[in-house]
Amino acid sequence: MSELTVAATQMACGWDREENIARVEKLVREAASRGARLVLPQELFEAPYFCQDQNPDFMYLALPIDENPAVKRMQQLAAELKIVIPVSIYERANNALYNTLVMVDVSGDILGIYRKSHIPDGPGYSEKYYFNGGDTGFKVWETGVGKIGAAICWDQWFPEVARILALKGADVILYPTAIGSEPHDPTINSRDHWQRTMQGHSAANIVPVVASNRIGTEKGLHGTQITFYGSSFITDAFGAKIEAANETDECVLTAPLDLEANRKQRLNWGLFRDRRVDLYKDILSLDGENRHAATR
Amino acid sequence: MSELTVAATQMACGWDREENIARVEKLVREAASRGARLVLPQELFEAPYFCQDQNPDFMYLALPIDENPAVKRMQQLAAELKIVIPVSIYERANNALYNTLVMVDVSGDILGIYRKSHIPDGPGYSEKYYFNGGDTGFKVWETGVGKIGAAICWDQWFPEVARILALKGADVILYPTAIGSEPHDPTINSRDHWQRTMQGHSAANIVPVVASNRIGTEKGLHGTQITFYGSSFITDAFGAKIEAANETDECVLTAPLDLEANRKQRLNWGLFRDRRVDLYKDILSLDGENRHAATR
Repeated sequence: MSELTVAATQMACGWDREENIARVEKLVREAASRGARLVLPQELFEAPYFCQDQNPDFMYLALPIDENPAVKRMQQLAAELKIVIPVSIYERANNALYNTLVMVDVSGDILGIYRKSHIPDGPGYSEKYYFNGGDTGFKVWETGVGKIGAAICWDQWFPEVARILALKGADVILYPTAIGSEPHDPTINSRDHWQRTMQGHSAANIVPVVASNRIGTEKGLHGTQITFYGSSFITDAFGAKIEAANETDECVLTAPLDLEANRKQRLNWGLFRDRRVDLYKDILSLDGENRHAATR
Repeated sequence: MSELTVAATQMACGWDREENIARVEKLVREAASRGARLVLPQELFEAPYFCQDQNPDFMYLALPIDENPAVKRMQQLAAELKIVIPVSIYERANNALYNTLVMVDVSGDILGIYRKSHIPDGPGYSEKYYFNGGDTGFKVWETGVGKIGAAICWDQWFPEVARILALKGADVILYPTAIGSEPHDPTINSRDHWQRTMQGHSAANIVPVVASNRIGTEKGLHGTQITFYGSSFITDAFGAKIEAANETDECVLTAPLDLEANRKQRLNWGLFRDRRVDLYKDILSLDGENRHAATR
């Protein structure tokens, strides 16, 4: 498989779960009608970004994977359209709660799951309140359309994640996301920083990235609000944006990729030949001094 | 120390060693006159980029550090101007040959050396012929102007290097470079890819980067030539280019940085709080399957 059209969707989310799922379905169908065989919806599209506040009732949004209505609908859709759909959900597993990606293959079967490893915590983004840190490690799946790696939102800031996905053979790296303004400080706008970081992962690993983000302004329970800045994008294998959405409009981005041409670039650049793994141990430390038990 | 003006120089190099050193001195003095206290000259400025060809005679360009005229001159200059100058040289150490950075402090003393870890090899860039792989590991020095990390040219493509330098506390990351056209394929232009990769390192680590590259067209021994594309640049802590040179002109870039403001951003973003070092072991493998002896 060499030619693959990929897609990212971008939309606002409200409190009607079925309506959100129906909107995703509409956008996924539009992407498929344009030839996309891998369609990435944004993070946690079944609800507003509830992490803006700390409210234990919101934990009941989490469902076991086999009871989640978005997963069921996307499985039907993937099988009907013969496409891959990575589905971002709030997962309940006994007393653990995860921010999980369910990889649905062209058959409609679930190939596996990835649980978000890096969990942010700051004003308006109280994810450590809602999610356990993921325990799956980083995942690349052999899907019906190629080897696809995925990570979730905050994971996208960490070069280690993209590198490990590339080492495991990812031909495309996906980042479903929910990011926008900082409710405590309206002067902060991380949009360009956010894009540059993922463009850098793409450039350094010679792998295209697909980022799907939400739009819309969502009000919190205590007078705060977040405006999600959209700006979903798709890069080529060198980190250049080849498709990019604006900050406000619902849309579907699609881009054709030549996976085999990119694989050839990954080899002939020599970056994966010249790595010095004998010198990287400090990366397993938090403080650069290599104190982590695993490395002693 | 919070405010620091940094500089990158950009120039062409010929076969007259003394003339190259004198030109660097002129540019360093210009940078210092504009307030720079950390000035980065480009990689291997004492000669044309001899790695375009494989010729054993060029190995005699390598000298022990204490016999290298560029190091001596830059030590005098650093002491006189009270600035830090990282000096890129071809180092001979008995039968080993290294691509080495000598970190000269504001006193004129040598703080330490870094030997280029990642050695490229491809048409026109035959560095594996000339250099041993570095054995120093990655270095951050407590200089008279702050904690400065440095890596050399090909190192700049590897996210592991920038990450480790940031983990070790680098306030600025330096990349002296010699990169340009690909003599076997004039359709390749890596300039934007090159900049995006380092901008990504800056963005992901919230550390400014300074890249210094050569200019000029250099002819090889067998009809080839390389046009070095300059485009030296300095980023802010979020990977945005705040100063950038063109592809053809000798110049000095300077930019003021607020190191303390950047340190605060590195903390309050939470990226160094949320790393999952328990999940990164595969980064020590070449093939993503974690087969490297060090990790077993």
